[in-house]
Amino acid sequence: MLELQGIAVSPGVAIGKVLILDREGYRITRSQIDSSDRHNELERLRTAIAEASSRLDLHRQRSTDQLGEQVGAIFSAHQGLLLDPCLQKDWVQLIEEQCYSAEFAVSSVLNRYAHAFRHMGSDTMSERANDIRDVERTLLEALGGAPLEASGGAGQSVLASHDLTPAETANLDREKILGFCTEVGGPGGHTAIVARGMEIPAVVGVGNFLHRISGESQVIIDGFRGTVILQPDEQTLESYRQRREARVTRAAKLTEIRDLPAITLDGTQVCLLANIEFPSEVASCLQRGAEGVGLYRTEFLYLGADREPTEEEQFQTYREVVNSLHDLPVIMRTLDLGADKVGSLQMLERESNPFLGLRSIRLSLRQPRIFRIQLRAMLRAASERTLKVMFPLVSTLHELRTARMVLRQVAEDLEEEGVPPPAKLEVGMMVEVPAAVLMLDHFIHEVDFISIGTNDLIQYTMAVDRGNEFVADLYSGHDPAVLRLIKQSIDIANQAQVEVSVCGEMSATPATALLLIGLGVRALSAPPAALPAVKQAIRSVRLEDWQQIASRIFDFDTAREVDAFLQARFSDLLPDMALGV
Amino acid sequence: MLELQGIAVSPGVAIGKVLILDREGYRITRSQIDSSDRHNELERLRTAIAEASSRLDLHRQRSTDQLGEQVGAIFSAHQGLLLDPCLQKDWVQLIEEQCYSAEFAVSSVLNRYAHAFRHMGSDTMSERANDIRDVERTLLEALGGAPLEASGGAGQSVLASHDLTPAETANLDREKILGFCTEVGGPGGHTAIVARGMEIPAVVGVGNFLHRISGESQVIIDGFRGTVILQPDEQTLESYRQRREARVTRAAKLTEIRDLPAITLDGTQVCLLANIEFPSEVASCLQRGAEGVGLYRTEFLYLGADREPTEEEQFQTYREVVNSLHDLPVIMRTLDLGADKVGSLQMLERESNPFLGLRSIRLSLRQPRIFRIQLRAMLRAASERTLKVMFPLVSTLHELRTARMVLRQVAEDLEEEGVPPPAKLEVGMMVEVPAAVLMLDHFIHEVDFISIGTNDLIQYTMAVDRGNEFVADLYSGHDPAVLRLIKQSIDIANQAQVEVSVCGEMSATPATALLLIGLGVRALSAPPAALPAVKQAIRSVRLEDWQQIASRIFDFDTAREVDAFLQARFSDLLPDMALGV
Repeated sequence: MLELQGIAVSPGVAIGKVLILDREGYRITRSQIDSSDRHNELERLRTAIAEASSRLDLHRQRSTDQLGEQVGAIFSAHQGLLLDPCLQKDWVQLIEEQCYSAEFAVSSVLNRYAHAFRHMGSDTMSERANDIRDVERTLLEALGGAPLEASGGAGQSVLASHDLTPAETANLDREKILGFCTEVGGPGGHTAIVARGMEIPAVVGVGNFLHRISGESQVIIDGFRGTVILQPDEQTLESYRQRREARVTRAAKLTEIRDLPAITLDGTQVCLLANIEFPSEVASCLQRGAEGVGLYRTEFLYLGADREPTEEEQFQTYREVVNSLHDLPVIMRTLDLGADKVGSLQMLERESNPFLGLRSIRLSLRQPRIFRIQLRAMLRAASERTLKVMFPLVSTLHELRTARMVLRQVAEDLEEEGVPPPAKLEVGMMVEVPAAVLMLDHFIHEVDFISIGTNDLIQYTMAVDRGNEFVADLYSGHDPAVLRLIKQSIDIANQAQVEVSVCGEMSATPATALLLIGLGVRALSAPPAALPAVKQAIRSVRLEDWQQIASRIFDFDTAREVDAFLQARFSDLLPDMALGV
Repeated sequence: MLELQGIAVSPGVAIGKVLILDREGYRITRSQIDSSDRHNELERLRTAIAEASSRLDLHRQRSTDQLGEQVGAIFSAHQGLLLDPCLQKDWVQLIEEQCYSAEFAVSSVLNRYAHAFRHMGSDTMSERANDIRDVERTLLEALGGAPLEASGGAGQSVLASHDLTPAETANLDREKILGFCTEVGGPGGHTAIVARGMEIPAVVGVGNFLHRISGESQVIIDGFRGTVILQPDEQTLESYRQRREARVTRAAKLTEIRDLPAITLDGTQVCLLANIEFPSEVASCLQRGAEGVGLYRTEFLYLGADREPTEEEQFQTYREVVNSLHDLPVIMRTLDLGADKVGSLQMLERESNPFLGLRSIRLSLRQPRIFRIQLRAMLRAASERTLKVMFPLVSTLHELRTARMVLRQVAEDLEEEGVPPPAKLEVGMMVEVPAAVLMLDHFIHEVDFISIGTNDLIQYTMAVDRGNEFVADLYSGHDPAVLRLIKQSIDIANQAQVEVSVCGEMSATPATALLLIGLGVRALSAPPAALPAVKQAIRSVRLEDWQQIASRIFDFDTAREVDAFLQARFSDLLPDMALGV
């Protein structure tokens, strides 16, 4: 048995025989053709390009239908690459002048570009290299190569691969593939986003491990903890199977409680909201009994696209979310990205520490044109309804005031244009920078609601990049320093009677969610899939117990002690649930 | 008049005619030689290499004498490059096989390497590119090129240049060059370090501006604020001249107060300590009346060197500091660098956010071998005296306890080896991560002293990389959020009667230093050059006034309001000093 640690990008557990997806078959050797065959070869290439283009059309169509327009847009970008005249010129030249085979021409040119992109040092550019690989794969298939499909056993398997492109992920057969793990990749990549959208358990960034496994051996993928267990021993398998069963049983029970309130045994009600990224996820919010959307991330509109989304495109997307939620509330968060992630913004210099750089509200305030377009689209989408706008990464009162001023101006412009304003407009902020917590007693009088973003708050409080494996042990929501800031925020908001929710990953884990409730919060926002378990936990406990637990937390020195205490109390009070986690 | 904003790397103001250092003369065109001349050309190259090598020897000697061994070591690295067999092979090949001139061979090979280093995306590697440029310059000079010296007017000038290498900086004629400004560069580069060591006012990273000036025009370099003013109008010139005069007058007065205590008019004494980097700086500490070293940065031992410094080298350096300080106290801080800055540690992957990554105490704890060597050297250097060791970037109690444990083990080992232990061993920590402030009531019982590192504390509290010009406006020690954390730290330390000092840049500005004293701190550590003005300010005020000012600070919402209030009060209470700032 060997346990490997990777990055959990999509929750769930998959147990099964491993199916290795190996790209070796695509290493094209340098093969030359007869010079008289050059015209035929060029013709082969042209046919293949046309064929690949229509396949991409199909992928886009399928993804758009199943996962929404934003995922579909990835494939438009691929098509743009495929039909890029520069690339085509390079291919033609290699065939015409060097008599190389179409396969080699395609492969060597694309490899060169992918390599260049990969070494530009920015995440977006590396992502672009992945897109290029996707195009290569599609084109080589069209040239007659063996399809790179997981062509292993007939039954269900767990996929292991060096990497998986977004297209490959979107095309996985959900009936046959129980989950996947890859050697490379990170939490913010398109592949991770697609995996979450498909609710397929996934762990990426495991490091080199493919050489350690052979096909048909057993693998466990734990998409909660980010671990991959190769050749698990019987005890581990049994424990995971038990948990899985407990989870299945619970899932069945959880469906039953969908329409019941999240209320503690001693009668305190908690509002459970969902975090979403795509309009298509509204369906799972409703299925899971969410009482609204506590965090609608609008970043995906900007990611992966070669150009900025237009006001109309944004309006349509936001409108779809608003409409499909019927009368449930939705908190729309404005752009929460670094400048390097927005296709149309060319940063002249790469930032040394993008997490401490020009991103989120800072970027919006420096790019008022883009900011205004987004606010216009939001205001239009919520015309005659309630609009809750939230600004991310607010660090100073000056920023909040400037952002509110822009919003006010945009709203006035729209009214002059005759667009009916929202029936109610509420403005909120993410509390995720230590400075925002420290000054919250000032901020609180200038917002209608706040949402505590625990992921970033942990990151800045502990000075730890959560994507950096070398310091991952310092990243913990159970660190007493972080818990103090969270408590302080909740207290200030409650005292001022301003709506407060928690929308980081801490809300998604039942034990931590109960702790947050014990600390005084009455609204949690988490991925839809996490809501039933959180509700079940809330319905099984007395608030009083968790208030007491919360008050004891601050006796401890370290995250480790808090962890241990919390797990012990959770197991005591909810033995059934503890087994399933 | 045009005011440009750059990065202040070395304080002071320079006013004078500009001297443009243009590297154009060194753009070697592709020139070929007669094939029969190849042997002569190779001979020319060999002679030039020998000549360049002895010039570098001279540079090293001079820098070692004037600035200490660590600066001198930069030139050893250059010599290593010059004599690198790979480089030499490339040069010879270009001359032998392509009949290129020695100049072109040298230039094109080094440019290729410099380019490669510059595009590796790490600061250390870019720094390396600079070293290569330095070698190129020396070698081209030895080949008979015109020396790249500031050969402008006969009088004193202000130097403007695209970039300046550390060697060029170290060789500037302090009699003729009043200050310098460059288009590129950052606060952490070797050039900045050398400039500070030489106390020559400097602003770097101004962006493209050389095309805007012509030789002989007036320039003001403000190394306090990081501004460069081209063709200043008469009013600005006059105001700067007045300030300069006031500063000269004050400097004379300041020398007089060197041996007087830093005591307020109402009798409260403050301990003024110095921040140093090199043993050679101890002299200026004593000249400026420092009562000890509040922060001895040991990073320079690791920077720029190709290999780790040995225990013996470190011991010698620390010993020199301890000895030359006689009986004054010195706080030695353990390595405060990222893994990418330590030559011998090859990070496999570049970190996306190094400021939130594996650095400082985190790195030391993961590299116990290096950590132990440093602690051994410190313990030996302070044998039979007082040793004050300080750990940087502590974020959790677990880290502090582990670091203390390693220190204890190392001390025991040395005792077993018969090395007399320090007469007194005190352990302290930097308080510079928000988590450390939030948990300081726990930390405080496990340390002998703390030092508040305001630079990093601002950075993490505001989530701002202070080197990032796009978000520089958010980086302020006057932000109320930061001031609250500082106040909280001072209060906790004072209540526990644990020694507390502030060692960030905030200590170096008289107005802010007084605010810190008003907040309750009684020890400040700042660069030696900043101490006299701070002492003068302390001796001119009543503590009571600044306690009142400090208590008013928290009424404000934003850094801007605090700034304005503080400047106004400072001008009221210390009109003479306000003029000179």
